[in-house]
Amino acid sequence: MFFASDNTSGVPAEIMAALTRANEGYARSYGADDIMARVTARIRSLFDAPEAAVHLVATGTAANALALATLTPPWGAIFCHRHAHIAEDECGAPEFFAGGAKLALIDGPHGKITPAALTEALATTGASGVHGVQRGALSLTNVTEAGTTYTPAEIAALTAIAKTHNLPCHLDGARFANALVATGATPAEMTWKAGIDALSFGGTKNGLLGVEAVILFDPAKSWELELRRKRGGHLFSKHRFLSAQVEAYLTDDLWLRLATHANAMGQRLSQGIAAMNSAALTHPTHANMVFANWEPGGHARLQGGGAIYYDLRPKEGRETARMVASWNTTDDHVDRFLALLKG
Amino acid sequence: MFFASDNTSGVPAEIMAALTRANEGYARSYGADDIMARVTARIRSLFDAPEAAVHLVATGTAANALALATLTPPWGAIFCHRHAHIAEDECGAPEFFAGGAKLALIDGPHGKITPAALTEALATTGASGVHGVQRGALSLTNVTEAGTTYTPAEIAALTAIAKTHNLPCHLDGARFANALVATGATPAEMTWKAGIDALSFGGTKNGLLGVEAVILFDPAKSWELELRRKRGGHLFSKHRFLSAQVEAYLTDDLWLRLATHANAMGQRLSQGIAAMNSAALTHPTHANMVFANWEPGGHARLQGGGAIYYDLRPKEGRETARMVASWNTTDDHVDRFLALLKG
Amino acid sequence: MFFASDNTSGVPAEIMAALTRANEGYARSYGADDIMARVTARIRSLFDAPEAAVHLVATGTAANALALATLTPPWGAIFCHRHAHIAEDECGAPEFFAGGAKLALIDGPHGKITPAALTEALATTGASGVHGVQRGALSLTNVTEAGTTYTPAEIAALTAIAKTHNLPCHLDGARFANALVATGATPAEMTWKAGIDALSFGGTKNGLLGVEAVILFDPAKSWELELRRKRGGHLFSKHRFLSAQVEAYLTDDLWLRLATHANAMGQRLSQGIAAMNSAALTHPTHANMVFANWEPGGHARLQGGGAIYYDLRPKEGRETARMVASWNTTDDHVDRFLALLKG
Amino acid sequence: MFFASDNTSGVPAEIMAALTRANEGYARSYGADDIMARVTARIRSLFDAPEAAVHLVATGTAANALALATLTPPWGAIFCHRHAHIAEDECGAPEFFAGGAKLALIDGPHGKITPAALTEALATTGASGVHGVQRGALSLTNVTEAGTTYTPAEIAALTAIAKTHNLPCHLDGARFANALVATGATPAEMTWKAGIDALSFGGTKNGLLGVEAVILFDPAKSWELELRRKRGGHLFSKHRFLSAQVEAYLTDDLWLRLATHANAMGQRLSQGIAAMNSAALTHPTHANMVFANWEPGGHARLQGGGAIYYDLRPKEGRETARMVASWNTTDDHVDRFLALLKG
Repeated sequence: MFFASDNTSGVPAEIMAALTRANEGYARSYGADDIMARVTARIRSLFDAPEAAVHLVATGTAANALALATLTPPWGAIFCHRHAHIAEDECGAPEFFAGGAKLALIDGPHGKITPAALTEALATTGASGVHGVQRGALSLTNVTEAGTTYTPAEIAALTAIAKTHNLPCHLDGARFANALVATGATPAEMTWKAGIDALSFGGTKNGLLGVEAVILFDPAKSWELELRRKRGGHLFSKHRFLSAQVEAYLTDDLWLRLATHANAMGQRLSQGIAAMNSAALTHPTHANMVFANWEPGGHARLQGGGAIYYDLRPKEGRETARMVASWNTTDDHVDRFLALLKG
Repeated sequence: MFFASDNTSGVPAEIMAALTRANEGYARSYGADDIMARVTARIRSLFDAPEAAVHLVATGTAANALALATLTPPWGAIFCHRHAHIAEDECGAPEFFAGGAKLALIDGPHGKITPAALTEALATTGASGVHGVQRGALSLTNVTEAGTTYTPAEIAALTAIAKTHNLPCHLDGARFANALVATGATPAEMTWKAGIDALSFGGTKNGLLGVEAVILFDPAKSWELELRRKRGGHLFSKHRFLSAQVEAYLTDDLWLRLATHANAMGQRLSQGIAAMNSAALTHPTHANMVFANWEPGGHARLQGGGAIYYDLRPKEGRETARMVASWNTTDDHVDRFLALLKG
Repeated sequence: MFFASDNTSGVPAEIMAALTRANEGYARSYGADDIMARVTARIRSLFDAPEAAVHLVATGTAANALALATLTPPWGAIFCHRHAHIAEDECGAPEFFAGGAKLALIDGPHGKITPAALTEALATTGASGVHGVQRGALSLTNVTEAGTTYTPAEIAALTAIAKTHNLPCHLDGARFANALVATGATPAEMTWKAGIDALSFGGTKNGLLGVEAVILFDPAKSWELELRRKRGGHLFSKHRFLSAQVEAYLTDDLWLRLATHANAMGQRLSQGIAAMNSAALTHPTHANMVFANWEPGGHARLQGGGAIYYDLRPKEGRETARMVASWNTTDDHVDRFLALLKG
Repeated sequence: MFFASDNTSGVPAEIMAALTRANEGYARSYGADDIMARVTARIRSLFDAPEAAVHLVATGTAANALALATLTPPWGAIFCHRHAHIAEDECGAPEFFAGGAKLALIDGPHGKITPAALTEALATTGASGVHGVQRGALSLTNVTEAGTTYTPAEIAALTAIAKTHNLPCHLDGARFANALVATGATPAEMTWKAGIDALSFGGTKNGLLGVEAVILFDPAKSWELELRRKRGGHLFSKHRFLSAQVEAYLTDDLWLRLATHANAMGQRLSQGIAAMNSAALTHPTHANMVFANWEPGGHARLQGGGAIYYDLRPKEGRETARMVASWNTTDDHVDRFLALLKG
């Protein structure tokens, strides 16, 4: 019963098979492998973005930090939700890669930024001329850190506000596949058609060993990102092993099938919790992440029974927790978890 | 006939098998996997360094830059050979990770720093009080960028000089296994017993998909390096896939067997070239890298025949080149290369 | 009627005279001037801190950023009030000098951090291990950006909380003299006796051309700060002209006399506003800064009459403003301002 | 007999008088003072550059580092002479401000870069694609660190080479006035007409308390430099005191008169040394800096007699030294120095 994170799962057989195939013979290094050429073409087609630049890295933090550093000058404020991964879980990587940029944190229910809150943040940050940092970029996350999703229309509403200040817009899509499945949107609808300029297109949490793609829909800064990737130590010599994973991921809709399963497991867990008197959801469950609280004693029963998940700070006398379902979570895992919680 | 770099080869079957094994079930993420505990113990034993801190990353640039940033303040000069990888091939990663540090470049024949040159460099850099950068660290490379090796005694002579200024000493061991095989030294003799404080222990060039270990023989700065790794986007969530590679690499001396083969292929190539009238070695061949020049026309014959390698800047009417043998280079590849070159 | 800032005033005659005296003959450069030796001794005596390190710079932003960078690693969070000068008015200088550090913003009424808010901030930032930034330093401001002051006891309460996490504590004293005069505290009471480790001891706003002293009560990091100052371009060659200003500033209590006058003018203005029906103070006036709002029309009368001050964002139908009195503000200026506002 | 540096002198009476005048009344802060508007107009006129952007800072290191950071991305190599001030005397400020940029050091006799050496450096740095740093900027120094000067034609020859790689060109003019006087060139001829894009226009060494102007001949990056200046802590609140110095400096050719005197004193000293059998110049004396060596014993006589200067590393049995004449050096000082040296 591993619900700590979707990154505690391994990878499906298709991915291991792709690695084995890619291991044959010699290949040019540093991104010049033949597989990468196919990956770029595939992603462009998938996103209906024939000019997009695609760069692979191995971690979500690298993808986000490199993308943001490319979009924002060192004196730029990156507007994001207070609980965004870039704000809370990357040990200051965006600040480091962007040469000392500042995150301007925006509150909002269930992990989402509202148009009003963004408008207010833009009115107060970057309004004092040379004395304060300037408005730099907007960074959204979908699926959010609270397990909710933005629809394309919601994203478009936020990027439209940002673009009144000419801000580039980034989407942290560590769980991009889960967001697409949850909303029914196409890749293009969720990104450039909604005003997104750069996407961290996640793979690791959804079944890869460790690959994320940075996609720049306007390729003008592709070479800059390439240099930042190398300089950040994120350009792989045996790059074919990254390319191969992504190629398999995007073949026969593997990525969407994995996310569909994970989301379904998240829903099963969420509905089970919602049906209990002693427990309650603390955020709506839009994808594969479930946030809940319950009466004291739940942690003891769950952890005593072998369930692994994050217990968060207790609040108002209730134990609280985050559970994440994965591409290989089973009905049985979910049901055993629910049984333990029910007690 | 791929001699462009040892990173154009894939990985041996033992490594793929280890990945497949590691893929079973769930594992704690971010370095807390069980395999990593075994890897740390194994490396400590191998280096006879029971306190050493071990951190895995995926690229050599990351290993070097993180190690150096941990050893050196932003105002420290990193003394290294003019043609060191950190100077020429990392797009300024050490400067970036170390917050704007400076590399103090030292000339020396065949990629090696001499004690006299190091002494002179230390006398002139860091001697002007607050006005200039301070002496920060020494970084050596073994195997060097010219394909030569330092013996443990040579390394000890250089670190002893550095330590008269209390400088920490780093060894870029992207080809550490090749250096050990070439010199017959033990891991301990080549590192902490010779005054090395931090090692970039390479795996990728010698048969891994992409893993290097940063080893701090004094673990006092281990937590700092851990934070720098995370902040640099180099902490893998599915870390078990790095650990598993290193575990297999160090099992049954696989790493030394791979390097032994690569070095033997390098020698075969080197000796073949040395025996030709029309060609000559430009550096001694101590390991798996061969540097040579030859009469005009060689490039055309070789490349026309399918040989892949680096052609360097021509000099004094001679074509010059770098060839690197790998763990999977065959006698046949070498002999066909030599036949083409001979013409 | 210049109330825009205390930095729109020039300097008193004593300071110009000191510059003229210092201009005689030759002097060693870069801080080795004889006057600086006397300044250091004087400050140590004044603060009852015989070991303190003293470094002069020309701007408050430089003083704050250099001090904080010396106290905090790049992955450290600097805890400060949401409206601190370092957060809003330095264009990201602390982030830049500290290599990408993060400011953790704390809300609090009237520009002051409360113990409860600090405790809560420390509980949530730096609590996620390697994933988040670490707790780095506490930075307080006295006089605050809202014109209020902390008493030594209030500062001590906050630093005591910070020190439960071993955090170094910085005081932005751009208006340090005003704070001392307002509270009646001694320099030692307001700083190291209250747990402050580093002070930005302001001079510019209180009558100097442009000098601030960074004082480290523990001199262990003095050399590091020295290097950061040089590297930041903040080490003056003709340093005697900085030293001379500070020497004159501290002679015959000039600095306290200037601040006493400025505070008195602030009180006169504040009391005049408080007595009007149409206007109200928005923060208590503890020193020389006055914050108020008033009925619409006030700006037009004041600015039409030649008053210079900051008009802030209007709120709830009221015009709002910041007025700062200076060492050379006159009763007449204040009274004319009040007459215009009254209408 | 102060020949340690031109920065051990104070300032002429005209400058003190200007400060006193500027001290009257109130002035807008942060560069919005009326004097600055006149300074900008005056500099544009002087350089025949009606669009140039002018920014004042207080130190030469700040001027150089801010200019270079504005011209160069973090992954850019700054080509400069091995002994340039930015390389040896700024504690890594360019690397810091430019986010970890690298200096590519070029050797050359008497402090000057030759076209051949620059061509060679450009051929080897920036030629390895994404792996190495890119070509970033050229930085020249006039008067050089060896006391020699470039003519406008020599500068034009170097910038023409740099511009074949589209590199922006910077001139460190800490002793710009001395260079103009020595060569007879106009400000325009020495700068933008010779391909210079950004100038550090020195004042401090030639009679100011501490002011340098950064001049961008193409103002497109003026706002970026403005933000970098603020963020670097180099924007003065009481900016009028910088403006006033520059205004006086440029009035009635004061700056050229001061430099003319300093250069004449340098020549007097240089010729006196050249005439001795026991001493010799080690670089030609083009301006106010004199480099010489002499038989052992000279240091003892000179320093025993009260002469202050830099004694450099002895070489080949000769004592070596640097002497700098200033705007207020007297014939008597020079003659006494020569008498002591002669012994």
